[in-house]
Amino acid sequence: MTMKELALACRDAAQTLAELDTSARAALLHAMADALERDAAAILAANARDVDAATAKGTAPAMLDRLRLDASRVAAMVAGVRHVAGLPDPVGQVTRRDTRADGLSIERVRVPLGVVAMIYEARPNVTADAAALCLKAGNGVILRGGSEAVHSNRAIADALRSALVAQGVPAAAVTVPDDLRREAMIELLQLVDIVDLAIPRGGEGLIRFVAEHARVPVIKHYKGVCHLFVDASADVAQAVALVVDGKTTRPAVCNALETLLVHADAAGDFLPRAVDALRARGVEIRACERSRSLVEGLAVATDDDYAAEFLDLVLAVRIVDDLDDAIAHIRRYGSDHTEVIATRDDASAARFVRALRSAVVMVNASSRFSDGGELGLGAEIGISTTRLHAYGPMGAESLTIERYVVRGDGHVRHKT
Amino acid sequence: MTMKELALACRDAAQTLAELDTSARAALLHAMADALERDAAAILAANARDVDAATAKGTAPAMLDRLRLDASRVAAMVAGVRHVAGLPDPVGQVTRRDTRADGLSIERVRVPLGVVAMIYEARPNVTADAAALCLKAGNGVILRGGSEAVHSNRAIADALRSALVAQGVPAAAVTVPDDLRREAMIELLQLVDIVDLAIPRGGEGLIRFVAEHARVPVIKHYKGVCHLFVDASADVAQAVALVVDGKTTRPAVCNALETLLVHADAAGDFLPRAVDALRARGVEIRACERSRSLVEGLAVATDDDYAAEFLDLVLAVRIVDDLDDAIAHIRRYGSDHTEVIATRDDASAARFVRALRSAVVMVNASSRFSDGGELGLGAEIGISTTRLHAYGPMGAESLTIERYVVRGDGHVRHKT
Repeated sequence: MTMKELALACRDAAQTLAELDTSARAALLHAMADALERDAAAILAANARDVDAATAKGTAPAMLDRLRLDASRVAAMVAGVRHVAGLPDPVGQVTRRDTRADGLSIERVRVPLGVVAMIYEARPNVTADAAALCLKAGNGVILRGGSEAVHSNRAIADALRSALVAQGVPAAAVTVPDDLRREAMIELLQLVDIVDLAIPRGGEGLIRFVAEHARVPVIKHYKGVCHLFVDASADVAQAVALVVDGKTTRPAVCNALETLLVHADAAGDFLPRAVDALRARGVEIRACERSRSLVEGLAVATDDDYAAEFLDLVLAVRIVDDLDDAIAHIRRYGSDHTEVIATRDDASAARFVRALRSAVVMVNASSRFSDGGELGLGAEIGISTTRLHAYGPMGAESLTIERYVVRGDGHVRHKT
Repeated sequence: MTMKELALACRDAAQTLAELDTSARAALLHAMADALERDAAAILAANARDVDAATAKGTAPAMLDRLRLDASRVAAMVAGVRHVAGLPDPVGQVTRRDTRADGLSIERVRVPLGVVAMIYEARPNVTADAAALCLKAGNGVILRGGSEAVHSNRAIADALRSALVAQGVPAAAVTVPDDLRREAMIELLQLVDIVDLAIPRGGEGLIRFVAEHARVPVIKHYKGVCHLFVDASADVAQAVALVVDGKTTRPAVCNALETLLVHADAAGDFLPRAVDALRARGVEIRACERSRSLVEGLAVATDDDYAAEFLDLVLAVRIVDDLDDAIAHIRRYGSDHTEVIATRDDASAARFVRALRSAVVMVNASSRFSDGGELGLGAEIGISTTRLHAYGPMGAESLTIERYVVRGDGHVRHKT
């Protein structure tokens, strides 16, 4: 089948999904989890083929780690799908209800988005996670993973599709194209009015490629150049804890801190303590000249360092004159993902929140809370840095759209 | 200035707007209305130049009518901006508020989208209407109207911009590019991460051009092939009133009816009466064979007629076997805009609503209510047929985005 035929079949299948009620859709997700559990051995065998091939090609260890599944990772995938099955159903939620003076009833109601194309690399668990969230919201999903995970992704999709068929939903609701050529991906990204949304998740190269070629709507899950600004009035011990948590607990994720900005009036107290705590955890610090004159042995930060998403135990540091200077820095170098202020001054906090347009802005809390699970979404399909439809962590609700249902009793606009 | 420089200046100006509070933004809109009123003579003189040039070029009367302003149309524009000034402020609205067990506070808050590019033709009132709604929601706007209205649009923008400057907002918040070449429009549509949303309003050609060339997100306001399905159980008098209102009260707008579907069991009673009422109002009917054997003198409907947005006193008619047949027809020919069922059967109504994915679905109410003003939005910038971000009538709220504001007291994810 061509990509267009696959997508049309997925759209038809999505129509069946959209007409299921809440309990039937939950039962479907439980059946998907059961099927993954049942087929764990086949999934692990398929994954071993991918890992062997990647190893033979000399793939980097970090990439191999993302690719590799084991029994506990499959169990986590199963648990993830079961968790999504139990979340509140966003479909059918009424977000506004009005009755006009003339008796006309107006409701805004959540309905599924339609067909979602996930474009991703490496991690095979995305296949199960994204399918679960998309189907939870009544959408069909086209899962275009990387060629390095092709056997893993097919095995996972086979399990999921067997569950769909057993529940009377066309297998095409979860579609994994065989054709992984770039030309085929471009075709997929240009199926206007068939594919309703493309979500690229992966490295910058992949995201740029998708943004460049897509004619369908795209929500980017782009990099997180997250900042912590330590204000003059910050509680120093709290601020040290925030930078340590933000930088060191999981440096490879997008909500990790990349740059620390310090108010000049706080630097003398705060910076030496922060550097000690960070160094004790193996963090390399690249700093401005003012910081380097305050603390010995810091490397020099370049302009590129302030724009970098290190995804590693590296932190850029700059001393700024004041809050305005910090805001200007973040506007210039930030990626609109997550910014934090440590302050005891309500006016500074309010100004920081108001002046920054990032998806998540925090006061005295770690950037690591910028996550769908932590913020109460139950699960996330990613963190949007696109300022449309969904901004920040995206859960099942972000995969629906609101439309109007109007009920009257023969109401007309112009009485005749 | 290049298009990019214009857009960057607009984005900077939008930042100033975003930091205004509710009353300051309302005052700004009132000042804009006052300036339009003050400059009415200049606007009418500029419009006369456009109308003269269009007349000399042999422009069609319908297009000339869309282009032409007079004192009452300028007064309507002024009233429209004042009306928007008085609407509730969407910016700053908290749409979700939670406090976790550990005390971390989570809010979802509406913030402006950023920079909106309106791409439109003919009607100069869009310049004022779109500027008012975009600024209401704290956005900068780039107004790229058609060359046929260039003097009108500039005069309106000059008035609006004088009000901005008087209120301390950079004039660039309302930007009207001088360069109306297609190349410049393409440049505008590809300013990724500067322009946050492009909204094309106009004919199919314009919308296709924008969709084809845009790299920034686009919300299409596409055609309305709106259907009325008269069910077996419909109240015949009500159904006749619905088709008359839907087709004849303003045939040139997108929420007018284009196709009437009639349940075979209702056709004998309903169709002759409907045809009489429509003919009395000058409607040309193009019908299926079954309809033509029931009522004399109906023209033949082609496949193209069922896909057409006539925007005129023409109606396509088809008798269908049942509700499923009607749903299948609408799925095949519809444009996801507005569909209506006339029925006294709750199960039919529920099935119709559930099965159709259109932006607005109505039960026993005229398609002509599919309008931001009628549905309680106060005003609309258009009716989205794009299944993302906003679907159906778009008001000021649709020009905002929700983001997260998180407040803690030194909260970290991993206590050390």
